[in-house]
Amino acid sequence: MLTIAPGDTVHTTTVDAGGTDEKGVTRVLGGNPETGPFYVETAAPGDTLAVHLTRVRLNRDWAESDDFLVGRAVDSELAVKMKDGGKTVRWHLDAGQGVATPEKPAEHLTRYVVPLRPMLGCVAVAPNVAQAAPGTGDSGHYGGNMDFNEIVEGATVYLPVSVPGALLYVGDGHAAQGDGELNGNALETSMDVEFTVDVIQGKRMPGPRVESATHIMAMGLAGSLDDAFRGATANMAQWLTEEYKLTPSEVAQVLGTSAEYKVSEVADRNTGMVLKINKEKLKPLASAVK
Amino acid sequence: MLTIAPGDTVHTTTVDAGGTDEKGVTRVLGGNPETGPFYVETAAPGDTLAVHLTRVRLNRDWAESDDFLVGRAVDSELAVKMKDGGKTVRWHLDAGQGVATPEKPAEHLTRYVVPLRPMLGCVAVAPNVAQAAPGTGDSGHYGGNMDFNEIVEGATVYLPVSVPGALLYVGDGHAAQGDGELNGNALETSMDVEFTVDVIQGKRMPGPRVESATHIMAMGLAGSLDDAFRGATANMAQWLTEEYKLTPSEVAQVLGTSAEYKVSEVADRNTGMVLKINKEKLKPLASAVK
Amino acid sequence: MLTIAPGDTVHTTTVDAGGTDEKGVTRVLGGNPETGPFYVETAAPGDTLAVHLTRVRLNRDWAESDDFLVGRAVDSELAVKMKDGGKTVRWHLDAGQGVATPEKPAEHLTRYVVPLRPMLGCVAVAPNVAQAAPGTGDSGHYGGNMDFNEIVEGATVYLPVSVPGALLYVGDGHAAQGDGELNGNALETSMDVEFTVDVIQGKRMPGPRVESATHIMAMGLAGSLDDAFRGATANMAQWLTEEYKLTPSEVAQVLGTSAEYKVSEVADRNTGMVLKINKEKLKPLASAVK
Amino acid sequence: MLTIAPGDTVHTTTVDAGGTDEKGVTRVLGGNPETGPFYVETAAPGDTLAVHLTRVRLNRDWAESDDFLVGRAVDSELAVKMKDGGKTVRWHLDAGQGVATPEKPAEHLTRYVVPLRPMLGCVAVAPNVAQAAPGTGDSGHYGGNMDFNEIVEGATVYLPVSVPGALLYVGDGHAAQGDGELNGNALETSMDVEFTVDVIQGKRMPGPRVESATHIMAMGLAGSLDDAFRGATANMAQWLTEEYKLTPSEVAQVLGTSAEYKVSEVADRNTGMVLKINKEKLKPLASAVK
Repeated sequence: MLTIAPGDTVHTTTVDAGGTDEKGVTRVLGGNPETGPFYVETAAPGDTLAVHLTRVRLNRDWAESDDFLVGRAVDSELAVKMKDGGKTVRWHLDAGQGVATPEKPAEHLTRYVVPLRPMLGCVAVAPNVAQAAPGTGDSGHYGGNMDFNEIVEGATVYLPVSVPGALLYVGDGHAAQGDGELNGNALETSMDVEFTVDVIQGKRMPGPRVESATHIMAMGLAGSLDDAFRGATANMAQWLTEEYKLTPSEVAQVLGTSAEYKVSEVADRNTGMVLKINKEKLKPLASAVK
Repeated sequence: MLTIAPGDTVHTTTVDAGGTDEKGVTRVLGGNPETGPFYVETAAPGDTLAVHLTRVRLNRDWAESDDFLVGRAVDSELAVKMKDGGKTVRWHLDAGQGVATPEKPAEHLTRYVVPLRPMLGCVAVAPNVAQAAPGTGDSGHYGGNMDFNEIVEGATVYLPVSVPGALLYVGDGHAAQGDGELNGNALETSMDVEFTVDVIQGKRMPGPRVESATHIMAMGLAGSLDDAFRGATANMAQWLTEEYKLTPSEVAQVLGTSAEYKVSEVADRNTGMVLKINKEKLKPLASAVK
Repeated sequence: MLTIAPGDTVHTTTVDAGGTDEKGVTRVLGGNPETGPFYVETAAPGDTLAVHLTRVRLNRDWAESDDFLVGRAVDSELAVKMKDGGKTVRWHLDAGQGVATPEKPAEHLTRYVVPLRPMLGCVAVAPNVAQAAPGTGDSGHYGGNMDFNEIVEGATVYLPVSVPGALLYVGDGHAAQGDGELNGNALETSMDVEFTVDVIQGKRMPGPRVESATHIMAMGLAGSLDDAFRGATANMAQWLTEEYKLTPSEVAQVLGTSAEYKVSEVADRNTGMVLKINKEKLKPLASAVK
Repeated sequence: MLTIAPGDTVHTTTVDAGGTDEKGVTRVLGGNPETGPFYVETAAPGDTLAVHLTRVRLNRDWAESDDFLVGRAVDSELAVKMKDGGKTVRWHLDAGQGVATPEKPAEHLTRYVVPLRPMLGCVAVAPNVAQAAPGTGDSGHYGGNMDFNEIVEGATVYLPVSVPGALLYVGDGHAAQGDGELNGNALETSMDVEFTVDVIQGKRMPGPRVESATHIMAMGLAGSLDDAFRGATANMAQWLTEEYKLTPSEVAQVLGTSAEYKVSEVADRNTGMVLKINKEKLKPLASAVK
């Protein structure tokens, strides 16, 4: 366990979801092994940990995925069509060109190109002392395996602190991922990661939140997309209430006109739904407060 | 019933969801009254109707919405907080500035501004002769009240033809709408509409599709977001199979790396989920085919 | 349209879901054709119609079903195993012995026997004047294609009246049906039906209710089992509040200790969930009221 | 850890969900504390553990529950009505009369009586070595906090063995519980428990199964009732395939005519749905096999 302080710049690396590092050496058992925990000085239960991802970069030139579609994505007809899926697909990562291509492309994919957008599938703190440690494939209020493709370099992830020191973990790098992580895997690869943390004292959140240059984003994580949708909406409603001092009526008007929902993932026990609001829309609200 | 031919430029207007026109005159009973039907020459069961929206513009300077959050968007705690919602909110539409603002803004919304993005909530064909005519609040393979905020000027809506002449309807204009139509209403207003149609003979689709300058979009419409998600995925999988000749394995690889899911609406009997793919990603596939 | 009065004994017959009568003659197009409407004297919007099924009996010795499992019942693995389903299975109905048996049983079903329990899949009133007439496969607050296997001889079905005369329909007889109507069909057959009706004036219900000798039963009908579950619970909570004068706290205590939930069907657009309470449990409550 | 052998009669006690024993002494931290683990000789990964509950009896005369309705049970309107719930309700347990009554009944519940039906909310084995130990409120293929009110004296619970010795736990006794465990709690009490175990070597099951004198029961445990429904159906389909040698077509016919679905619980992370089949229906199938 490494101890870090708010404001420290932390450099680290993550192995891929199968435990393999940048040199192709398997370093640890697969299943989303994570780097950490980092004990964050001053972080205490009831605080919020802000993790600023200052660098999320590839450190090798290949990734692995597959040609499966997860059960949640297929109806009974599509399940039959997709029944032979599951073969490993290896991708070449060209950081210079900023693209990924299948190493041995199938007939119609010889010219198919995926823009690289390196992301971390897992950013987590310890849930709490009473609860059993969750598996690295799971997610919840503590973050975890969120597989959200906007957790990229430049983003800030906010997580509620439940134990002293927060106990931060990062891992499960994806070179690129479509919404939903439909293959069960994305372009799984190792990663160079740099981050700093802040501790927002006395601030509690109902679940993970993410902020980019352009958007604030509230996550809902639940066993169905319908419940995750409600979770994301409640998370954002609380954000607007607490940070922007909106009344319930005002929350409804802002959400009705500015909500952007996207699916983060459907591949694990929890699905994820994200409610995004463009920060341009919120600027006038913040001014009004002051 | 007006008869139109493929290629004709059709100019029309739509009243708002309450039946009120551009002059504020209530012309018809509320509940998403629609303009139509338009009988499309040559359209026959088994074809696809392509509706090119060449103009979707405001024709008055006000809209009405409310401050309610629909049941599907709230968990049991948020339901209690939102229990007093439901008041009508009137918005001023400034087409010159391209923005909407509440006419009598609540305390924290005095500077809140919503960019105008006029859209049609309803684009429909007749479902089929055997089935009872659906209500104007419903949706399905025939389109209908999809409340999808990318059905805007410049978009093309594809619907499967089930009866001779297709019987096209349009209506339910929204000056702007967040994803989900969380208020049950959006900024409901009357609209000037212009469109042309094409008939794609012998082509069947499993459900509505939309195309913009940048994306192809497959809709899933079902009684839960989970089922709508599967519906959208199956609709897009069929699109990739038929138009781009992809094998099941290739479909999985493309979806896993390029899928973008957003929620269209949760306010009506059917929820809507949309799977979008950026057309840039698909260009190399199309080339490979030829 | 036949006019009937409360208290009248009405004898009628229903064809099977395919439109075939007791003599094997196809009398009408398939798709759950119904017998009716019966205009009920004195029934007015805002009332409740009580339909007492005094006789629901077989009138022929065969039924048809199939060996399909509907999409909602299968996960992606079971979908693949069941992919060849859909063949018609014809059943012999032996009213004397009270059993159904496959006419040409498959290898392991040569001794498989299903107890007859004749039921009506459809009991409906007109929804309302504004709404389009629903299809005969649909369901809602007006009843309709509920496919609930406790709508049998001796049961009373309560439906909210929305139009003058209620406009009662009955149909879709099943000789027997497992919970869920998993084959999409049950043992579809024609039926002899006898009923009387009562009009409960000024009483509104949120959705269909059924009463047997032993239980009161509140239905939830929605696009997912999760929503149908909430619908059934809300329907029963209102029943306990209005009929037994329970407070919210008392409703919670009674439901927590006495609720029995079963799935009525998953084969149509709406799923159905039923919350049953044993009338023995409620007798002391009723006494307390008086 | 106690070591037991197949065939041993094991006597034990369980504290209530809050950690309180039969004398009212709090013995352990609350949150479904369990008795165990019992290491079962000869049980190995890939086997099935059969737990025969030969005695599940009350050992004190009180239980605690509350007047809350869990979020999954309420729609947005019922949530508002139920917003003040959550008070503890203490019940008197009269084992002689076989009934429970509220100690301080609310106005309309002075004569309300609940038949005792002592059950175990939790029966679990260790999930596997790789996976983190689940919390005692969770459930899965390993059983766990199933809160199914037919896990009573006389029932057999079948669980897949994942680690050497199985590591059996029991706990969370309920004096009585309605379907769904709608209050989040049932009538929580301590219990005298006696059981024997069998090890069925080399037999794997996809999830928990229960057998009573009259029924076989397959559970589905998932984050939505819709997914749990599919899980229960798949679990039972596999049971019929493996034990009764039915073909897919035969499975569909038996399920379509004999399925009985009930909701076990909606109070925890996983909901539970149970597919029951009356053993009378299956007897002729078993004979056919031999």
